[in-house]
Amino acid sequence: MNFEQFFRSELDGLHEEGRYRVFADLERQRGQFPKARRHTADGVKDVTVWCSNDYLGMGQHPKVIDAMKQAIDHCGAGAGGTRNISGTTHYHVLLEQELADLHGKESALLFTSGYVSNWAALGTLCSRIPGIIVFSDAGNHASMIEGIRHAKCERVIFKHNSVADLEAKLAAADPAAPKLVAFESVYSMDGDIAPIKEICDVAERYGAMTYLDEVHAVGMYGPRGGGIAEREGLMHRLTVIEGTLGKAFGVMGGYIAASAALCDYIRSFASGFIFTTALPPALAAGALASIRHLKESQVERFAHQERVRRLRSLLDRNGIPHLPNPSHIVPVIVGDAAKCKWISDLLLDNCGIYVQPINYPTVPKKTERLRITPTPLHSDGDIDHLVGALHQLWSRCALARAVA
Amino acid sequence: MNFEQFFRSELDGLHEEGRYRVFADLERQRGQFPKARRHTADGVKDVTVWCSNDYLGMGQHPKVIDAMKQAIDHCGAGAGGTRNISGTTHYHVLLEQELADLHGKESALLFTSGYVSNWAALGTLCSRIPGIIVFSDAGNHASMIEGIRHAKCERVIFKHNSVADLEAKLAAADPAAPKLVAFESVYSMDGDIAPIKEICDVAERYGAMTYLDEVHAVGMYGPRGGGIAEREGLMHRLTVIEGTLGKAFGVMGGYIAASAALCDYIRSFASGFIFTTALPPALAAGALASIRHLKESQVERFAHQERVRRLRSLLDRNGIPHLPNPSHIVPVIVGDAAKCKWISDLLLDNCGIYVQPINYPTVPKKTERLRITPTPLHSDGDIDHLVGALHQLWSRCALARAVA
Ligand SMILES: Cc1ncc(COP(=O)(O)O)c(C=O)c1O
Ligand SMILES: Cc1ncc(COP(=O)(O)O)c(C=O)c1O
Repeated sequence: MNFEQFFRSELDGLHEEGRYRVFADLERQRGQFPKARRHTADGVKDVTVWCSNDYLGMGQHPKVIDAMKQAIDHCGAGAGGTRNISGTTHYHVLLEQELADLHGKESALLFTSGYVSNWAALGTLCSRIPGIIVFSDAGNHASMIEGIRHAKCERVIFKHNSVADLEAKLAAADPAAPKLVAFESVYSMDGDIAPIKEICDVAERYGAMTYLDEVHAVGMYGPRGGGIAEREGLMHRLTVIEGTLGKAFGVMGGYIAASAALCDYIRSFASGFIFTTALPPALAAGALASIRHLKESQVERFAHQERVRRLRSLLDRNGIPHLPNPSHIVPVIVGDAAKCKWISDLLLDNCGIYVQPINYPTVPKKTERLRITPTPLHSDGDIDHLVGALHQLWSRCALARAVA
Repeated sequence: MNFEQFFRSELDGLHEEGRYRVFADLERQRGQFPKARRHTADGVKDVTVWCSNDYLGMGQHPKVIDAMKQAIDHCGAGAGGTRNISGTTHYHVLLEQELADLHGKESALLFTSGYVSNWAALGTLCSRIPGIIVFSDAGNHASMIEGIRHAKCERVIFKHNSVADLEAKLAAADPAAPKLVAFESVYSMDGDIAPIKEICDVAERYGAMTYLDEVHAVGMYGPRGGGIAEREGLMHRLTVIEGTLGKAFGVMGGYIAASAALCDYIRSFASGFIFTTALPPALAAGALASIRHLKESQVERFAHQERVRRLRSLLDRNGIPHLPNPSHIVPVIVGDAAKCKWISDLLLDNCGIYVQPINYPTVPKKTERLRITPTPLHSDGDIDHLVGALHQLWSRCALARAVA
């Protein structure tokens, strides 16, 4: 087999479908976020980033910056080993305590990313609990799907956010089998929110564990940034709460929070936890500072929500259609991969506005979109500029307008 | 099912087998590595770390420290997104170029860890190339095994480092099937080294791709730190070279280096690459500084090898048995999980020497060991202290002596 030719022809397929991904080469500017510099063949250009998951701008918060630099000065660059073999530092220990506290759980366990936390935790639970059946929301993230797939256990997909469908499927399953229900709070691409309470009620009735991914909610919802489950007073109802340190907390890493026994079990058996170098002390220190700040401060959360409302109302006024949802994510649906990329290129090249087109496989085909994420740091001027540019493009290329 | 009880009884099993893992809670001290502070219930104690994979002490090198702090000042804490959605920074681009150059390949691709690079790259190649057969060394790391397992392709295990067995198995397979041979250069627990040239010869004869994990060799072998394949002039013979930024380079992250088409293919199709927040700019900047330094400087590599020789000769003089191997890893076999942990506890509590016991599943049962990793920063005094302590323990507990 000619491997090179195989790779090239597969890539050609992506080009033809208009979904070959080109990464924007950015230089974030601390203190000026969401402004950044973009490196292109023609030199460096200024852009405003409208698609970051550093939702609250904590990636440039002075407390986070200082904590990271101090940890580097104090301990050096990397952890130097796996958690078991010299890689656990005091920052990891403190961060796990902080995360357990954030979610009202006995323990927490760190992973190198949110992806790995889902993959490793679900992969371990679902492969090691004999006869377990997993009930997985149809909209779950790739990392959860891979973890469940890894486990080779029985898996039942329930309709996205449908409590009725979940209940029907739980009722149809062997009553004696151990069960786990896996879902998210804020779904990242549509921005819709799961009926957590109702899902917990049903799960409880059938003796199922509940596993909630709060990756797009931690830091942003709840009086201490514990996520949607905190806001709704439901944290104690969930068996496992999973989150990331790489989005609203502004750094990198992932975790689960759960009972001491469950965390210790994953710690002891999960390949993806055991056989990998631990997070650098500086990342743990930065995340710790970020979480502590957002446990106390409401400023970022309030400003964030206000910016989202303002953007939405200006989009409405200009007839730019966006998915209605109760979260901070503003999806503007285009519905065609090539057109979506074309709009995004125009915004970038002509207006200095960076919104990455979101195409398949991140979202289903025909729902290609611009996924806009306002932050507390986007000014009125930034919002006006974005909406103005979208308005012009919508007129130019005869895209469907929202009916008022 | 009572889940809590299940978790607890599984953990009890580990305790009974003497392989429940207790993490040492360390505070690395920049500028004083391999010295560190250890947090215990009775307060903080000084220890010398003898089991770090920060093999060359680059985790505290001033160039690495400065590069990381500068990147934090310049760009902030996290990348703020996946590589595709606002998370690619100029540091990532430069680092990928540097890694491609290090291994003499057209391209390189970054992952959040070495674990994820193996899992995602092998998982993608082996699941997407129709009919592929993977030939995997019996000693391969968990991350490679999980990647191959993920793919659900046909998989043939060949005897560890046995070219004859590999050849026999390649010869027995369908000649028309696409093939890949996956192996490591330095095996981390025994410290033995693969016959890379012979494996490449055989693979070539059967038209198989070659995938080499150089995680425990990059930075340390070859005139520019390109690994064993560089030292032996074989880099061009490998289809993929995989490495980590978390061991000799002292930071965190993983990568593959290969043809432009192969890297672009993995970039475009690997779930574990696509759906996760990118490495923080500061980690990319630190790794860049570390690689650039080790491309030019031989000081660290020479000192490292000299320290390894000195430790080995002192162990020999004292009759402490250690596996002979041609690498920098010094495994002292104990052969019993509980005894191994007991020795390690004594070293830690009585002598301030930290060597984590290595038990199953990291190594096979009955080969439990102390895995000692000297660095250029261990002094003569540190080595004397370690060997003296081992000598005493060996006398006290009637452990087998090496026959001179
Ligand atoms: C729902 C969800 N879970 C998990 C992840 C993975 O988190 P991380 O970026 O920390 O790997 C993501 C996105 O990246 C996500 O959208
Ligand atoms: C052979 C081998 N490959 C890959 C890895 C994973 O690399 P990382 O620690 O960067 O995840 C390790 C150890 O951790 C290893 O020993």
